[in-house]
Amino acid sequence: MKLYVVGFGCGSRDGMTIEAENTLKSSDLIIGYTVYVDILKKYFPEKNFLSTGMKMEKDRVKTALKCVESGKIVSLVCSGDSEVYGMAGLAFEMSVEFPTVEIKVVAGVTAALSGGAVLGAPLTHDFAVISLSDLLTPFDKIEKRLRLASQADFTIVLYNPSSRKRADYLKKACEIMLNFKAPETVCGYVSNIGREGQNSKILTLRELMGESIDMFTTVFVGNSETKAINGKMITPRGYANV
Amino acid sequence: MKLYVVGFGCGSRDGMTIEAENTLKSSDLIIGYTVYVDILKKYFPEKNFLSTGMKMEKDRVKTALKCVESGKIVSLVCSGDSEVYGMAGLAFEMSVEFPTVEIKVVAGVTAALSGGAVLGAPLTHDFAVISLSDLLTPFDKIEKRLRLASQADFTIVLYNPSSRKRADYLKKACEIMLNFKAPETVCGYVSNIGREGQNSKILTLRELMGESIDMFTTVFVGNSETKAINGKMITPRGYANV
Repeated sequence: MKLYVVGFGCGSRDGMTIEAENTLKSSDLIIGYTVYVDILKKYFPEKNFLSTGMKMEKDRVKTALKCVESGKIVSLVCSGDSEVYGMAGLAFEMSVEFPTVEIKVVAGVTAALSGGAVLGAPLTHDFAVISLSDLLTPFDKIEKRLRLASQADFTIVLYNPSSRKRADYLKKACEIMLNFKAPETVCGYVSNIGREGQNSKILTLRELMGESIDMFTTVFVGNSETKAINGKMITPRGYANV
Repeated sequence: MKLYVVGFGCGSRDGMTIEAENTLKSSDLIIGYTVYVDILKKYFPEKNFLSTGMKMEKDRVKTALKCVESGKIVSLVCSGDSEVYGMAGLAFEMSVEFPTVEIKVVAGVTAALSGGAVLGAPLTHDFAVISLSDLLTPFDKIEKRLRLASQADFTIVLYNPSSRKRADYLKKACEIMLNFKAPETVCGYVSNIGREGQNSKILTLRELMGESIDMFTTVFVGNSETKAINGKMITPRGYANV
């Protein structure tokens, strides 16, 4: 018996993989966070859904595992990819107590990729992905990663850049990165990727510091070679010089 | 007029997004590297294809841009995502000389995500993606990124870990990472993700150093919290302790 942990991409119907679509279609029950379940209900109105709120992750996984144990085909859904800040890890950890249940991870297009495609091609070369949420990670660890990733000249993608409680975190992150990255570094952000109200902007790291951004936004900070070409954010891979 | 730069995922039919499939179906011409075109010919036997060899990237993009200019619907294809070590950046750079052509990036599931799903859930938390190919990047830059990413305790995904000319690069990379990561760090690799002959292994960083791996392999090096659970590579996000 398998529990499918499915990343359904940015939220547009066609951003989903064929595997994700087929898995959801063949499920008896789709379980997820309320906001994501509401998106999927529109695409699969005939399906049974169960949604729970934020910080209910362990309950959600436990319910999913129990339903599989009782013979149901269950998909536990995550936006983007099911690994990246998603539920796949927790599902494996908790499945130890459900020895008859196997976990099957169905990968999806994470916001670094779907957002990157909106901005142009910021991620053609080495990059680092960092979440600014300190709900599950101490801020000094986040700060250390920002510092070292900047020093390494990675293009950096910031997930969870802001929330009501963390309104100044993006500014703090920019200050740290500015110790190693030039103020003119090309940056960009995309909010509501692939959904109604999608919005994006290209700007410099200095400008990014003063920008107010909500929690549905993914932020991209270029490396030293990233440039703006016709309003797009492009990190060259080097082919043009070969 | 648009040039579609399409990431088609790991190579299995259902690893493609619905958007990628629809884009390829509606194209007059699909252009790509020989190996990728051969994969797609099986899925879209009715389509027109044009393939060129390695190191022909600039020619390939130029041909694609010219075909769009002449009125054709053209997809330029990349395995995985079209940004990550793909062609999207070059397409934007070269499109400057084709002012009537707009570039549309169609994101795909890159090997870090499709490979991660095979291994378990190594990428639930912050991570860095580094290519070991020094064809377009000097090795001292690669070395610096490996060092700083290890110091930052990122889970690290290595693309292009090996080739005939670079047979000892993975060993070198492991030596650098071992300065900051414990020899017992949980690692994994997957070759031929989603294709015939898919093969994966979980092992320690010390063991990885002695492993011989081909160029169709993606390598994952855990962070300090990554563990092996029932033969899977899992990086906890922290929920289990909340």
